[in-house]
Amino acid sequence: MKSFLSINDVENLPELVKDALEIKKNPHVYKDLGLDKSMCLIFLNPSLRTRLSSQKAAFNLDLNTAVLDVGSQGWQLEFADGVKMDSDKAEHIKEAAAVIGSYFDIVAIRAFAKLENREEDYSEQVMESFKKYCPAPVINMESGTGHPLQALADLITIEEHKTVEKPKVVLTWAPHPRALPQAVANSFSKWMQAAGFDLTITHPQGYELVGEAVGNASVEYNQKKAFEGADFVYAKNWSSYSQYGKILSQNPDWMVTANKMKLTNNAKFMHCLPLRRNVIAEDDVVDSENSLIIPQAANRIYSMQVVLQHILKELK
Amino acid sequence: MKSFLSINDVENLPELVKDALEIKKNPHVYKDLGLDKSMCLIFLNPSLRTRLSSQKAAFNLDLNTAVLDVGSQGWQLEFADGVKMDSDKAEHIKEAAAVIGSYFDIVAIRAFAKLENREEDYSEQVMESFKKYCPAPVINMESGTGHPLQALADLITIEEHKTVEKPKVVLTWAPHPRALPQAVANSFSKWMQAAGFDLTITHPQGYELVGEAVGNASVEYNQKKAFEGADFVYAKNWSSYSQYGKILSQNPDWMVTANKMKLTNNAKFMHCLPLRRNVIAEDDVVDSENSLIIPQAANRIYSMQVVLQHILKELK
Amino acid sequence: MKSFLSINDVENLPELVKDALEIKKNPHVYKDLGLDKSMCLIFLNPSLRTRLSSQKAAFNLDLNTAVLDVGSQGWQLEFADGVKMDSDKAEHIKEAAAVIGSYFDIVAIRAFAKLENREEDYSEQVMESFKKYCPAPVINMESGTGHPLQALADLITIEEHKTVEKPKVVLTWAPHPRALPQAVANSFSKWMQAAGFDLTITHPQGYELVGEAVGNASVEYNQKKAFEGADFVYAKNWSSYSQYGKILSQNPDWMVTANKMKLTNNAKFMHCLPLRRNVIAEDDVVDSENSLIIPQAANRIYSMQVVLQHILKELK
Repeated sequence: MKSFLSINDVENLPELVKDALEIKKNPHVYKDLGLDKSMCLIFLNPSLRTRLSSQKAAFNLDLNTAVLDVGSQGWQLEFADGVKMDSDKAEHIKEAAAVIGSYFDIVAIRAFAKLENREEDYSEQVMESFKKYCPAPVINMESGTGHPLQALADLITIEEHKTVEKPKVVLTWAPHPRALPQAVANSFSKWMQAAGFDLTITHPQGYELVGEAVGNASVEYNQKKAFEGADFVYAKNWSSYSQYGKILSQNPDWMVTANKMKLTNNAKFMHCLPLRRNVIAEDDVVDSENSLIIPQAANRIYSMQVVLQHILKELK
Repeated sequence: MKSFLSINDVENLPELVKDALEIKKNPHVYKDLGLDKSMCLIFLNPSLRTRLSSQKAAFNLDLNTAVLDVGSQGWQLEFADGVKMDSDKAEHIKEAAAVIGSYFDIVAIRAFAKLENREEDYSEQVMESFKKYCPAPVINMESGTGHPLQALADLITIEEHKTVEKPKVVLTWAPHPRALPQAVANSFSKWMQAAGFDLTITHPQGYELVGEAVGNASVEYNQKKAFEGADFVYAKNWSSYSQYGKILSQNPDWMVTANKMKLTNNAKFMHCLPLRRNVIAEDDVVDSENSLIIPQAANRIYSMQVVLQHILKELK
Repeated sequence: MKSFLSINDVENLPELVKDALEIKKNPHVYKDLGLDKSMCLIFLNPSLRTRLSSQKAAFNLDLNTAVLDVGSQGWQLEFADGVKMDSDKAEHIKEAAAVIGSYFDIVAIRAFAKLENREEDYSEQVMESFKKYCPAPVINMESGTGHPLQALADLITIEEHKTVEKPKVVLTWAPHPRALPQAVANSFSKWMQAAGFDLTITHPQGYELVGEAVGNASVEYNQKKAFEGADFVYAKNWSSYSQYGKILSQNPDWMVTANKMKLTNNAKFMHCLPLRRNVIAEDDVVDSENSLIIPQAANRIYSMQVVLQHILKELK
């Protein structure tokens, strides 16, 4: 693996998941891969799980890691070519990416969607510019349109808990008080389909994901109907793609409840966290035996670690 | 040791101090304890000594450590059960503690008293919730009502410098321009008594510590009388417990002076730092040969290291 | 080397540069120097290259490093003697430096000029106070008046690319929208002269550097004339020393252009970054084959690493 910006960078998905499960059994035996290598984690936005699971994955590999937080003060990077840089932007992405990539063997970046301009967010300017100008491999720790490390952790979790070869997976929109990016939903949809699972996406009218993410998934506007026979229910809020960044509904009827879960095939419940209890899902669902949210979050370690290992192997 | 929230978690105090003094002689020989283990330091409040001495203790043990600062942006955690989380709190302590505890072998937390609501501060909500929901051992890096790592460092320092078996130790309130928590004073009082020392607490009327912290210590409102025959004078400001969080006095007569120190049995001077010179104590006291403030701060390394070692031994 | 505050701490400059170039060939073979040693990086101001290159140099040496950011919240240190500390300054430099120096084997500090009071900035209060009260060696990561780690990286870069023994080096002022310190220019001038190079400094009237930094360099107010025959052109903005901290000119005629570079002896172009394109220098210069800005930034690793190694050798 050269870089890890999206599922397009994965050559063999079943092998990646198999390797992750193998790593999970004995995470400390691959330290030779990290020897004399180092990584930089760049956060343009806040992070809890991604930050800590990435550091833990690096610990497991003896991979030295520097963390750069540029969210609070802002990092005034210029991305345009030929500009006279006499305003607030002190550095061009060309130099920033080239320098950081000359210091470290791997560079991982988080840069959220701003939800102001769809074309800008979906152009993936930060991620694509780093890929272009940074000589080191780049890892996406959640970008404007995708969160592939989360989707890989989700896939690992489903592989561990599925009881049939091709489970029915339901991605359900759920209400939330704030406007959230589509990144997690986009990546989840793409990865589930790439894994060959039977994916149904359910949400109110107007919350359709970008066509590229929907792919061949079934879209069902009746949540209860969608839940029928589900093996996994993945809840997530996102803001509208068509009326970009807007909250079109906060209808509490879309909350995942224990009653709705009864419609499923004894489905496991998943969410990427943080989870607003009794808004996204009822306590009874979150705390049920079928809730996978904690092991799912724990798999973020192995999702990052397997990506690091595949990249480090190519650097040897 | 399973966790380290207060002196109640210490099974054998003399042994803990003895082990700390042993570690101090040769701090780098216990690295096998840190092998393949990792720790997360969570700061809900600023920290200088605690942050750096904890990292240094971890370095001595080859214990990989991630630092999470959640003070500046705030960490909007929900602690109540059954709440509909539709306001500013994005994550429930149940998930936050469970996830961090699934990533790391040890979790250490700092969460100051807010000095607004006594019952809330003394309920130790953050510390107790982490202990409840975090599967990993939890270490208190200063909580609403206690600072046991400081008290242990204080005890180590006194053990190193005492010339009699049971020295007379005086904890004296001293003035300060801001309202400070009672955490350091509470823990110091408990630990000195647990160590079997002869403890006198002196402060103006209204600054009585919580009864549980006072225990069997002598309380003396006449500071000069309290100093008579003292082997150690420990200065510290705290705000009122009875008129909770209030500053009742800034009387400069309570400053520790060289003249007052003459009343003692050539007492050593101690303070947990940071110390406001010529407010808490005169320069002549702070800079005197009897001042232990720097070696006392240095012992914060061994206070943390011995706690880590006792916890890591149980994890093996 | 005991500390590294300025070029005055360098005993043998050619040897230091030779060692740096040797380290660069095989940076991971000196790890025994870092064994059981640790460092603290203290940032009173933001940092990208210095922060990351210092951490990378430490990784290369297996030198455990704690990073302390005190810029955002401010670090209210008292520097004056005998003061009654009853205002906003919570800690005296005497304790802060003594404690941090008791925790770590090396302490590195960044503290920018405030550009408000020349005497205050040029007194180097932070750096000198740490040197005085900190028992551990101190490294200057950019102070009020100098940036010796940058100058050493610059010198390493010139040594790698020079084609004559004593190249003609031109330090040229260039315009910038904000008032910047003189630290980089001061150190560059001193180090180039110490290396025995032929240094010309060119800038508009009123931008004369402090006499101690100018030394025996040629000062030429005609930029084009200065460029004639240059082997290296080093661009940098700084604010006025005589009218302290003021911007006297933003004249775009001082920008480094491809046309001006034609006046040189096919000179290499250098800048310490971040660089405002088409303000400091044209894209055509920055992106030309003769631009050394990225390898120059990469040499920050070896500049820090050689200083660390010289200090660590004395600690053994």
